[in-house]
Amino acid sequence: MTDKVDWIAVDWGTSNLRAWGLAADGSVAVERSSPKGMGKLTREQFPEALTELLDGISGLNDGPIQVLICGMAGARQGWLEAPYLEAPTDLADLFAGAVRPAMPDARFAPAILPGVCQRGGADDVMRGEETQLLGLAALHPDFNGMVCMPGTHSKWARLEGTRITHFSTAMTGEMFELLRSQSVLRHSLTGDLDGPNRSAGFVSGARAGLDHPDQLLGTLFKVRASALLSDRQPDWCAGYLSGLLIGTEVGSKRHLIGEHPVPLIGSAALCGLYAQVLAMIGATGVPQDTTKIVLAGLKAARSRTAQE
Amino acid sequence: MTDKVDWIAVDWGTSNLRAWGLAADGSVAVERSSPKGMGKLTREQFPEALTELLDGISGLNDGPIQVLICGMAGARQGWLEAPYLEAPTDLADLFAGAVRPAMPDARFAPAILPGVCQRGGADDVMRGEETQLLGLAALHPDFNGMVCMPGTHSKWARLEGTRITHFSTAMTGEMFELLRSQSVLRHSLTGDLDGPNRSAGFVSGARAGLDHPDQLLGTLFKVRASALLSDRQPDWCAGYLSGLLIGTEVGSKRHLIGEHPVPLIGSAALCGLYAQVLAMIGATGVPQDTTKIVLAGLKAARSRTAQE
Repeated sequence: MTDKVDWIAVDWGTSNLRAWGLAADGSVAVERSSPKGMGKLTREQFPEALTELLDGISGLNDGPIQVLICGMAGARQGWLEAPYLEAPTDLADLFAGAVRPAMPDARFAPAILPGVCQRGGADDVMRGEETQLLGLAALHPDFNGMVCMPGTHSKWARLEGTRITHFSTAMTGEMFELLRSQSVLRHSLTGDLDGPNRSAGFVSGARAGLDHPDQLLGTLFKVRASALLSDRQPDWCAGYLSGLLIGTEVGSKRHLIGEHPVPLIGSAALCGLYAQVLAMIGATGVPQDTTKIVLAGLKAARSRTAQE
Repeated sequence: MTDKVDWIAVDWGTSNLRAWGLAADGSVAVERSSPKGMGKLTREQFPEALTELLDGISGLNDGPIQVLICGMAGARQGWLEAPYLEAPTDLADLFAGAVRPAMPDARFAPAILPGVCQRGGADDVMRGEETQLLGLAALHPDFNGMVCMPGTHSKWARLEGTRITHFSTAMTGEMFELLRSQSVLRHSLTGDLDGPNRSAGFVSGARAGLDHPDQLLGTLFKVRASALLSDRQPDWCAGYLSGLLIGTEVGSKRHLIGEHPVPLIGSAALCGLYAQVLAMIGATGVPQDTTKIVLAGLKAARSRTAQE
């Protein structure tokens, strides 16, 4: 038995690989995922990882199935480098920058979408988020404003229709993991981190970060000192560290956040925390359905191929 | 052959153990060091590490030799916890808080000086730096102002004579090591980090940190983006990261730095970098001879024992 699809949408990130087979009417006919993210693969292993994931899927029509990929598969250390578009740019043009890696399995014709870069003093890069932004624009054509994409490397982007005018990256999620597991703070972050004190710690840390985003290097050590002096438990300390980092990030973006609600694209848990911190400064964060956003982005990018 | 001493001064940090045998006239008769810092020892291993280091040293007088210790040996996870004095406090009273761990080798009578803590919203701790501050006060009795102690955990303290009124810790050095070796930035920090571009990277990073200490989480990623987009070499990136972190630290303390020169206590290389960054905001950093400072601190603390 095989699954028949029109084309395949793929989100190939650093940690995970996800694929959706789309029916002719645009609905999802089949969904697959694998832990074979870019970070775990050598260049030579990409084709096999894709074939393995798509096994049993066949096309509605003759000829190879188009596989449209966004994310880190297009990075320099990925499958095949897809050169960046440079912001400000119109994301509706993403497909024009796609690259086509060699694919031994002739049933599939992969194309990898480019990322977006920014030069001139504010050097920055994104891969994958640009497709999400295009998806957001497709679902909300009238949106103009800041978008926040929480994660290992959080992105903040200004979107005007399908145009990205400026963006920046905050290493918030990675910093949390490093500090939790590798730094001197780990001594205060061992045990049950999800206990009842976590939310109080989170609010306290978020307040400190929002009020004094310039004091992060100094405030971080309070996690350790509070455990030593005030018998703060690991769950409180974990909440404090998380809140402090997110509060610092949001606090440093405060001047960019306008009157409009801020769409949040990322894991539900993380988006919930960002919404909570945004609320503390009177702003509104609106968590999005990330899968829906990614799919909408890949569809919107592909819609340009039909016009080619 | 033995070395005869009046008493022994010991600086027992996380990474290293150093000892100086003092002659009756206060001069250093013998100097020893070992890599057996607190971080490498279990509680039971402290006495042996000390005996081993002091082997062959004997006293000028009968009876056990007084060994006065500052630093992490007095931490909860050290040899014997020496409860903190609470800032604001007079460091001239350090010795009153010393604890005396059991010592199987009766030739030596160790005493460990307390650290200093701070409570009430600005929870913080130090162990070892308080003795350096007392040493600075002993060598410069008229000093009133901010002191900066660069390191893994940099300390900034306000000293008024022998009184410490307030202090804070910045995790700058630890953050540099974590980011350099464990984060995504490591991809741009592999190779010759001490090449000719390091100083230009340092100045650029320091400028960014000084100007926008609130933007650290965002600016950090520029290390990676600059390597990807602008072919920045590893030496430039290492300099940028170092400058950004020190610049952010100094920038966040700017409001505390008065007209007076800021004494710098730490490794010569690091103090040189801090002096360079302080100069960028029109302030003056004055690197101190750290060994002289520690010894002066232990001597000053011990001078109180004579009065007891």
